[in-house]
Amino acid sequence: MSLLNDRIKAITAPDQKMAAAALERLRNQARPAGSLGVMEPLSARLASIAGKMDVHLDSKVIVTCAADHGVVAEGVSRFPKEVTAQMVYNFVNGGAAISILARHVGAAVRVADIGVDHDFEPELPIFHKKVGKSTANFSRGPAMSREEAVASMEEGIAIVDELVAEGPLHLLGTGDMGIANTTASSAVIAAFSGLPISSLTGRGTGLDDEGLAHKIRVIEKGLAVNRPNPGDPIDVLAKVGGFEIGALGGLVIGAASHNIPVVCDGLISTAGALIACELAPAAKAYLFAGHRSREIGHKFMHQRLGIDPLLDLDFRLGEGTGAALAMSLLECATRVLADIKTFEEVGIVDANRN
Amino acid sequence: MSLLNDRIKAITAPDQKMAAAALERLRNQARPAGSLGVMEPLSARLASIAGKMDVHLDSKVIVTCAADHGVVAEGVSRFPKEVTAQMVYNFVNGGAAISILARHVGAAVRVADIGVDHDFEPELPIFHKKVGKSTANFSRGPAMSREEAVASMEEGIAIVDELVAEGPLHLLGTGDMGIANTTASSAVIAAFSGLPISSLTGRGTGLDDEGLAHKIRVIEKGLAVNRPNPGDPIDVLAKVGGFEIGALGGLVIGAASHNIPVVCDGLISTAGALIACELAPAAKAYLFAGHRSREIGHKFMHQRLGIDPLLDLDFRLGEGTGAALAMSLLECATRVLADIKTFEEVGIVDANRN
Repeated sequence: MSLLNDRIKAITAPDQKMAAAALERLRNQARPAGSLGVMEPLSARLASIAGKMDVHLDSKVIVTCAADHGVVAEGVSRFPKEVTAQMVYNFVNGGAAISILARHVGAAVRVADIGVDHDFEPELPIFHKKVGKSTANFSRGPAMSREEAVASMEEGIAIVDELVAEGPLHLLGTGDMGIANTTASSAVIAAFSGLPISSLTGRGTGLDDEGLAHKIRVIEKGLAVNRPNPGDPIDVLAKVGGFEIGALGGLVIGAASHNIPVVCDGLISTAGALIACELAPAAKAYLFAGHRSREIGHKFMHQRLGIDPLLDLDFRLGEGTGAALAMSLLECATRVLADIKTFEEVGIVDANRN
Repeated sequence: MSLLNDRIKAITAPDQKMAAAALERLRNQARPAGSLGVMEPLSARLASIAGKMDVHLDSKVIVTCAADHGVVAEGVSRFPKEVTAQMVYNFVNGGAAISILARHVGAAVRVADIGVDHDFEPELPIFHKKVGKSTANFSRGPAMSREEAVASMEEGIAIVDELVAEGPLHLLGTGDMGIANTTASSAVIAAFSGLPISSLTGRGTGLDDEGLAHKIRVIEKGLAVNRPNPGDPIDVLAKVGGFEIGALGGLVIGAASHNIPVVCDGLISTAGALIACELAPAAKAYLFAGHRSREIGHKFMHQRLGIDPLLDLDFRLGEGTGAALAMSLLECATRVLADIKTFEEVGIVDANRN
């Protein structure tokens, strides 16, 4: 696992002097100190990552990672697994929710096949990074091998490398597609936190009460069968995760290793970010939480990561939709820091200094 | 008060058939039903207001209403009242927070002098709508006469009329500037709700504990001296409100009477919206709450209006900053409804119908 380990070691801390200079400028702006709330620390973090006060997030890309899940055989989703591949085509054709939300914020959407159970045409304009055709059913054994888990993360890193090679990349967003992947993601946070499965498991695409109770039992069985080691994030990913979850973690490590801020989306993207940050705590400095999803396990991921989500719009879709809207807030934060004038610049008495 | 009354009577209900058609289209989109959370009812409301499915909010204007407050003499703000006029110039010059946030979302900022204690140059590109040079100190008597209260609301209506005469206006945002105007706004919600002043009064631009306790006493005194009648919104505005608060209410009634959606900002803008909707409950159908401010009285205004704020970014600035960011979400909602493809359009099995 040399690429993964090399990149984890390559992550450096953002520029703390720039963060301090940014906070000082924010305090001097012609408005009450602290009056722009979360925008202020956000803008300081972005300045510290970029190493400059006037940050421009012109090039924004959302990578939506898709894969299938063997656990779908347990009947944990209302949608058949074929929808994963169908939605990949929908993303490519630009008619999906993420297509529309990304366009609204000026971000590009790039789709990655990490493990969809479908043979995509080689010419389809996606990242072809298939680690396998669906994971195995984790309620009966490991979802994937340890080698596949590392490979899925390294595919995420490779995607960031390819994007960076294409041209400047200022902000990365992560998104997911994969029928049954809320089941795997709830299992991941359960493995790390040890909290009761019922407190971490939501309705996914819309299970009824009976479906939800069944989903909880399937996850409980998966954890009992596999006994993932919470001190070994690769083991957690391999036993109960998913190929796209691994790649989503790789995106975070890849972005952090390139000093690029990365905003994660919902339950699945955050499961990937969690694995990344358990492996590489230094990556947290580059990570932003886009939104709080309606999936009840999401907030426990945010708690464990120690980051607050920017938006709470009751989304439960994935694809990168919450990350897309948060990208606009991050871009706004850069303008707040650089463009709002100081008391001195506009000649107003600074009551913040009273 | 014929203009005000005429416009209140002119407000019609949005197109409920269009709202139903919008909800049906949302349910048919190729994603789990309800998965875009608050975006969905939002987009349906915007469609019902516009009377069409494909709404474009291209022309967005934030009107920032400024006025001074006699109650500033009681020492309820850390900033001197001269800052109100200084900030008007800062808005016009484009260096203020609202200038930057509005630019980020593609909205224009228009400033209105409703009662600043300063003689602005007639050529200054603002709406010159001065009702008086500052209100009186409401802790010793009424802030303004009943006639001035009506006039301040009618100036808000006149501003919308002028904007509409200039060209298409698809979305209006409201914002405020006025040293000491959180004091007046907390008094307004206190007058309507009867709740304890201490539960409705925040630190404004940054009062310390002693300053906050003093501000609460000033508001208590103002309510005891004036005894505003909660059943008579014009009386509440006149006794403890402000000129810009009246105009902010007029903007809501004006927008509603032109079938234009309007998004209000923080404590002061929402105080104006509250007066508007107490006078004209039909205006609520056109009103959107931009964000929840750190000012503790704000949530009680939202409760009374029965609308949930879109954002919670811990802002406490005003100017229209929270409304600006919310405008982007409203615009996104229109794209969600019109542009996300349906199951049928993309040929995917619709599990929402299972």
